[in-house]
Amino acid sequence: MARKIILDCDPGHDDAVAMLLAHGNPDIDLVAVTTVVGNQTLEKVTRNALSVAAIAGITGVPFAAGCPRPLVREIETAPEIHGETGLDGPELPAPAFDLDRRHAVDLIIDTVMSHEPGEITIVPTAGLTNIALAARKEPRIVERVREVVLMGGGFHEGNWSPVAEFNIVIDPEAAHIVFNEKWPLTMVGLDLTHQALATPAVEERIRAVGTKPAAFVLELLDFFREAYRENQGFEHPPVHDPCAVAYVIDPGVMTVRKAPVDIELRGALTLGMTVTDLRSPAPADCHTQVAVELDHGRFWDLVVDALVRIGEPVA
Amino acid sequence: MARKIILDCDPGHDDAVAMLLAHGNPDIDLVAVTTVVGNQTLEKVTRNALSVAAIAGITGVPFAAGCPRPLVREIETAPEIHGETGLDGPELPAPAFDLDRRHAVDLIIDTVMSHEPGEITIVPTAGLTNIALAARKEPRIVERVREVVLMGGGFHEGNWSPVAEFNIVIDPEAAHIVFNEKWPLTMVGLDLTHQALATPAVEERIRAVGTKPAAFVLELLDFFREAYRENQGFEHPPVHDPCAVAYVIDPGVMTVRKAPVDIELRGALTLGMTVTDLRSPAPADCHTQVAVELDHGRFWDLVVDALVRIGEPVA
Amino acid sequence: MARKIILDCDPGHDDAVAMLLAHGNPDIDLVAVTTVVGNQTLEKVTRNALSVAAIAGITGVPFAAGCPRPLVREIETAPEIHGETGLDGPELPAPAFDLDRRHAVDLIIDTVMSHEPGEITIVPTAGLTNIALAARKEPRIVERVREVVLMGGGFHEGNWSPVAEFNIVIDPEAAHIVFNEKWPLTMVGLDLTHQALATPAVEERIRAVGTKPAAFVLELLDFFREAYRENQGFEHPPVHDPCAVAYVIDPGVMTVRKAPVDIELRGALTLGMTVTDLRSPAPADCHTQVAVELDHGRFWDLVVDALVRIGEPVA
Amino acid sequence: MARKIILDCDPGHDDAVAMLLAHGNPDIDLVAVTTVVGNQTLEKVTRNALSVAAIAGITGVPFAAGCPRPLVREIETAPEIHGETGLDGPELPAPAFDLDRRHAVDLIIDTVMSHEPGEITIVPTAGLTNIALAARKEPRIVERVREVVLMGGGFHEGNWSPVAEFNIVIDPEAAHIVFNEKWPLTMVGLDLTHQALATPAVEERIRAVGTKPAAFVLELLDFFREAYRENQGFEHPPVHDPCAVAYVIDPGVMTVRKAPVDIELRGALTLGMTVTDLRSPAPADCHTQVAVELDHGRFWDLVVDALVRIGEPVA
Repeated sequence: MARKIILDCDPGHDDAVAMLLAHGNPDIDLVAVTTVVGNQTLEKVTRNALSVAAIAGITGVPFAAGCPRPLVREIETAPEIHGETGLDGPELPAPAFDLDRRHAVDLIIDTVMSHEPGEITIVPTAGLTNIALAARKEPRIVERVREVVLMGGGFHEGNWSPVAEFNIVIDPEAAHIVFNEKWPLTMVGLDLTHQALATPAVEERIRAVGTKPAAFVLELLDFFREAYRENQGFEHPPVHDPCAVAYVIDPGVMTVRKAPVDIELRGALTLGMTVTDLRSPAPADCHTQVAVELDHGRFWDLVVDALVRIGEPVA
Repeated sequence: MARKIILDCDPGHDDAVAMLLAHGNPDIDLVAVTTVVGNQTLEKVTRNALSVAAIAGITGVPFAAGCPRPLVREIETAPEIHGETGLDGPELPAPAFDLDRRHAVDLIIDTVMSHEPGEITIVPTAGLTNIALAARKEPRIVERVREVVLMGGGFHEGNWSPVAEFNIVIDPEAAHIVFNEKWPLTMVGLDLTHQALATPAVEERIRAVGTKPAAFVLELLDFFREAYRENQGFEHPPVHDPCAVAYVIDPGVMTVRKAPVDIELRGALTLGMTVTDLRSPAPADCHTQVAVELDHGRFWDLVVDALVRIGEPVA
Repeated sequence: MARKIILDCDPGHDDAVAMLLAHGNPDIDLVAVTTVVGNQTLEKVTRNALSVAAIAGITGVPFAAGCPRPLVREIETAPEIHGETGLDGPELPAPAFDLDRRHAVDLIIDTVMSHEPGEITIVPTAGLTNIALAARKEPRIVERVREVVLMGGGFHEGNWSPVAEFNIVIDPEAAHIVFNEKWPLTMVGLDLTHQALATPAVEERIRAVGTKPAAFVLELLDFFREAYRENQGFEHPPVHDPCAVAYVIDPGVMTVRKAPVDIELRGALTLGMTVTDLRSPAPADCHTQVAVELDHGRFWDLVVDALVRIGEPVA
Repeated sequence: MARKIILDCDPGHDDAVAMLLAHGNPDIDLVAVTTVVGNQTLEKVTRNALSVAAIAGITGVPFAAGCPRPLVREIETAPEIHGETGLDGPELPAPAFDLDRRHAVDLIIDTVMSHEPGEITIVPTAGLTNIALAARKEPRIVERVREVVLMGGGFHEGNWSPVAEFNIVIDPEAAHIVFNEKWPLTMVGLDLTHQALATPAVEERIRAVGTKPAAFVLELLDFFREAYRENQGFEHPPVHDPCAVAYVIDPGVMTVRKAPVDIELRGALTLGMTVTDLRSPAPADCHTQVAVELDHGRFWDLVVDALVRIGEPVA
């Protein structure tokens, strides 16, 4: 049976690919998409999410906007990576449907509470503000959710600081809330996603799909490649967010390791670090695990396959 | 016209007196009561709020339960001050009505948004978790609220640490959110409320009212006096929370001073301190003020007058 | 018998007055003067100390230069209060003698260890870098020193931040070391020294002394008054440092209160705060006390009397 | 020409091996040995240093005791790794000579200042209290020292916390001082030293030397192996400290990478972390580098060769 997921995102080039993967893969049932400030303002990323839905032909799934700012810190966005629109590069179509009228936090809560325990998986690929607020507003979601599989953090790698990753550092208090709740949580962090490089061979495979959504992905990757070259010294861009979706589809696409993870809230140099204890085997009740090694071919197989399945959506 | 207030509380002995003052005073229109973990667990303080409503004959006002734990920190309650029930001392009647079905955060948001801008004053006398979540979930409440008048903090006095007060220190991140939003905010802190002592003369006046609610207050004060003697070296107990309500009724009951206030989130010794800059006159756009000196007689006049007006509520 | 003191200073207008008071008062035996970076660079304050010695006719006392920078933090000086030289205003004479060849830290250690236990009082009126290093290099000085009477900090007042004072905040780690060693320590902080105002009546008394050192003090006060008016909104300047010397001469010149004091090293808003617990009587083994109320007349009597005794030193 | 080094240590099992390596290797000229609190109290580690000197036949080198406690934090020792004596396992001979009368800080300063610029290398294998105090007391040593090669920290590995190493975390303020001074500094951290395992093959080689010092090393390793098995889950013990000496002898024994390193002083989870920025090539003026990969065979060759050269010292 397909895994029901809520995708909480801030599209974002790699979020867009994550949406396409979730929509195109038959083992995923995308039951809600929620947006949150992150790569760009809430308004922009929400518009982007709807545009990606139009491109991918996603219909019948509620989309809701969430928090326009982090819990405690000031807003920090990433225009150097995602451009002024948050999805610079391709031309974006107008949205094909309206947002759900609920706040993302309430859509998350309603979705989890209206499904059976263990049915819903939450896949955050952005700052964790919405998820944290949902867990605080309705604590019962925590034991009802099947698991949280998120893109964010890193045990040895950082990008926004030497030891912190963007999604965590923009709202470290929210991350602290989400990582400390006792749901099963998989951190698909930079250690893993820096392996998910869109190499020329990968692009060739996507080009071969020959559809508009595939062309859209290529345009995204064009912009992303330049942004990563200029800002972070990557030759090929790491496509972070679909890795989290890929793990839900097929845990065999990466190795993971159980380890306690906590969020540094006070450090002068380490704010937002996902402090991971790798010194010895994790205790039996450890509810967190971290992604270690990606099967690069198998991962991109999933993405290409999803694009093939999506085909040319009817406008 | 009476001032419409939302009382966000964690009864709590002094919260109970604040409820009675708000209900009995003709210049206050109590439009909602919301509860939050603090002096005791959410379950206990919510039950207590309903019991106080029964004693005071409060009807037709929605009561809603809010957050069962602080945003980031672990739960810390105050049984040494308020006992195991949160309202030790008097016998508590059964609730006379049911809770509103909404979450306190939504009741706060709905109440503010369904009134005219500038109509609703929020009076928190507990940790600021509910108010912070409401401001984050619906940012538009901030400019719609008339003002926030809260009991908490202190510019020179602390109780839970040398420099921090209980309501702030139990959820400093929530306090940081509430103090940094740009609504007019009055901090009625320990500097002020440590002047609101229930002296024997005050108790005599309450006794003279001769009603059941007055007797209930005396029983509350009996317990509170012992708790403050044993735990904080006070001869007469400071009755904090009604001071905030009193300020809404009659700003002349205390002097206030405009001053920037911010919340310390990182200090090893100062976590949750309401850091107040009293070095020079506040800048013109300063949106916070702190309560300095109480008119003790005028304050207790308000409390006694409210008890007289409440009389003997019909069960 | 006169009290033997080591004056550790960073002249500095008020440090200069402290030197004159220590030199001119018969109950003080100034056994060493040490300098440390603070109001200005080490080089400047050391030169100033020697110039003040020339003006006051101090001879036969070893002067030694100490640390040119704080323990951990970067150098922060106070040119807006003390000018570019650290002693702007009067013309400064050339030094009349050379520095001791020892480092201030070694002069402090040697002086304490070569006197009987309980003989030497340390009077720091600057950042505490030298004293902290001395205590770490030779821990035995701690129980050998009679007491430490320092100008710095404040329990309710700040100047360099809302809650921190310059001498502490420029080297909070050093202050942490000094306040946590178990010697008797009196904090003469801003709460006290903001009462030590050089009013017109005070200046009139100093003018009446009619000597060159008195004229020098008046020139210092002229500059200091302007600096405090422009930068801190004072009408008359607070003359901090001699208050610490005055307490050694005559503890009756101020009231003090025993209270635990510790230094905040981590706060985002409270770094360098001298966190003082005034909630209840200090424990019996409390080794710190804080100065509360100054006898303004008696204090200035001491300063004027010292100037009278100094008279016109032979060049 | 042999490299002149000051070895600043807290023996400690691996410190003892570092002393033997420094003494036995012809390319090292051991000009001073200083001790500091760390693995055990100052008194114990100083006694141990003298005993190791007796075993190794070290004569004519000044040994001085330094700081008995860290700069700011409380003392923390490691009896679970080094036992109650700090060098549990072998029987220790009585010292064969007396300590230098100077404080370690002064011996370090005197040694550096009395040699030519660029002559002295400092090799700390303990907490950095002595080195930090020396740099603060005599700042001119910083540009006079050739380089600092220290055992401590780690860019990806921790032992005393998930992300901090013992030598750094026991005195993070001292480490902050040492890492921020602009001398060339090589951090030989856990990433490297966890490769320096004393495997059975290594022990066999040491046994084959057949001398008393070699037997002493074997006894050290016996105890160390058990301690690391029980406390840190290692099968063979990592012999940290001689790695720093080995790098001075022969930089080819390990690969290093230039990278900025700073010390976290405020983190709740990351205190004392050596935060290393590996995101991109280090800036041209970067004065720090970190050790990455050990040539295990070449390293142990150096240790065994030193033991062979030491032979049987005359008592």
